[in-house]
Amino acid sequence: MAVTAAALDAFPEVRPGDDLAALIADRSTPRDDDVLVIAHKVISKAEGRIRALSEVTPSKRARSLAADLGKEDPRHTQVVLDETREVLRASAGVLITVTHHGFICANAGVDRSNVPGQDAVVMLPVDPDASARRLRARLAELTGARPAVLVTDSFGRAWRHGQTDVAIGCAGLEPLEDWRGRRDATGRELSATWIAVADELAAAADLARTKDGEQPVILVRGAGRHVIEADGPGAIAMLRPPEQDLFR
Amino acid sequence: MAVTAAALDAFPEVRPGDDLAALIADRSTPRDDDVLVIAHKVISKAEGRIRALSEVTPSKRARSLAADLGKEDPRHTQVVLDETREVLRASAGVLITVTHHGFICANAGVDRSNVPGQDAVVMLPVDPDASARRLRARLAELTGARPAVLVTDSFGRAWRHGQTDVAIGCAGLEPLEDWRGRRDATGRELSATWIAVADELAAAADLARTKDGEQPVILVRGAGRHVIEADGPGAIAMLRPPEQDLFR
Repeated sequence: MAVTAAALDAFPEVRPGDDLAALIADRSTPRDDDVLVIAHKVISKAEGRIRALSEVTPSKRARSLAADLGKEDPRHTQVVLDETREVLRASAGVLITVTHHGFICANAGVDRSNVPGQDAVVMLPVDPDASARRLRARLAELTGARPAVLVTDSFGRAWRHGQTDVAIGCAGLEPLEDWRGRRDATGRELSATWIAVADELAAAADLARTKDGEQPVILVRGAGRHVIEADGPGAIAMLRPPEQDLFR
Repeated sequence: MAVTAAALDAFPEVRPGDDLAALIADRSTPRDDDVLVIAHKVISKAEGRIRALSEVTPSKRARSLAADLGKEDPRHTQVVLDETREVLRASAGVLITVTHHGFICANAGVDRSNVPGQDAVVMLPVDPDASARRLRARLAELTGARPAVLVTDSFGRAWRHGQTDVAIGCAGLEPLEDWRGRRDATGRELSATWIAVADELAAAADLARTKDGEQPVILVRGAGRHVIEADGPGAIAMLRPPEQDLFR
């Protein structure tokens, strides 16, 4: 079956309190078996997860880290630290952190791009799975359909250059597809096949948009076998517990 | 623009020496701006990258590693070691290796699934970028079109559960799209946007197939802006050099 990813029409600048589901419903006719893939930044903005750097006073630790890493604005580093549970690596100009949610990414997901006004930064949603659930429920009110909702960000990876979009929140989606114990075409048991469907959907959606920030929502059709009636375990279920992780 | 991924019709069991491009041409009418995404296993089989475990004698190191990790067949571990430049982690039943190519993955990509005969294993192609280039050239002979060719495998990741398909070889594709220095919708320079397009294509394609091994080739349409006339740098260009890697 074909899987198709297509961007919804350009969005206006999203502001705190905006009804994002209404903006989506104005631009699409989602079906129950669709997946709406949403770059987190518009959700963060709608939820007011923005800080003005002019109101941030960097701590001694933030100033020291920023100086060590060659970061130009220690206030930005302070916001990163505020969003951070643990600093995993700080070297070569790069700050890799574990966010309060448990995501491992550069700068705790704090980002200045696509933010109007020179001194604002956008943070990840406080609970991206909850954001996805709320959006799904509101979309059902507005459209009568209950597509899955996936919230994404662009994360770098160990070992490989570049970023890919990954899932940081989801509702109505089984984020991991477990083929372990099933059999392949030759009858052999598939021993290690546990597919990060939510991340593959995030990556597929990213191919359908440009990075200028004007196409935050992608509708993916043809992946309905991963869509579930319940909201499901969320993207948080994709996080490897620290004690099982060989690369921290 | 919509991006669409669709599996080609089921393939027969591929054997050493088979003309894979002919099998693809029989099942598709590729265009110059398409990307053909091929699970490496059929390429490995066509290239004879198969070993019979009955002909493998495990070394002392392989027997010791297999025992430590609870691996049931030290001959399999021997083949993994033969494909390995460096063992990165060996614990909790998991063997994470750097392959001779430089890929970091479990078991050096050596896999028993979807191999007919109980005692054969399949290895990664010796040079997956060269495999992609040869397939692209042969497809041009057979079809007159020069789609990009992407060779994939399913790799686990640090920090997150599950596997996603990633690029291990490519031809006719710019594997990384560099937005650094370009500007977002608000005019701000995008400082850290370097997109692993080849990996996102691999992930998107994986959504369009089942894992039973009968749909090894996916045609992706709508990603033509990443397709290039030259064969390009290959997937090897995506590997982060060890000295820049914070997670080894």
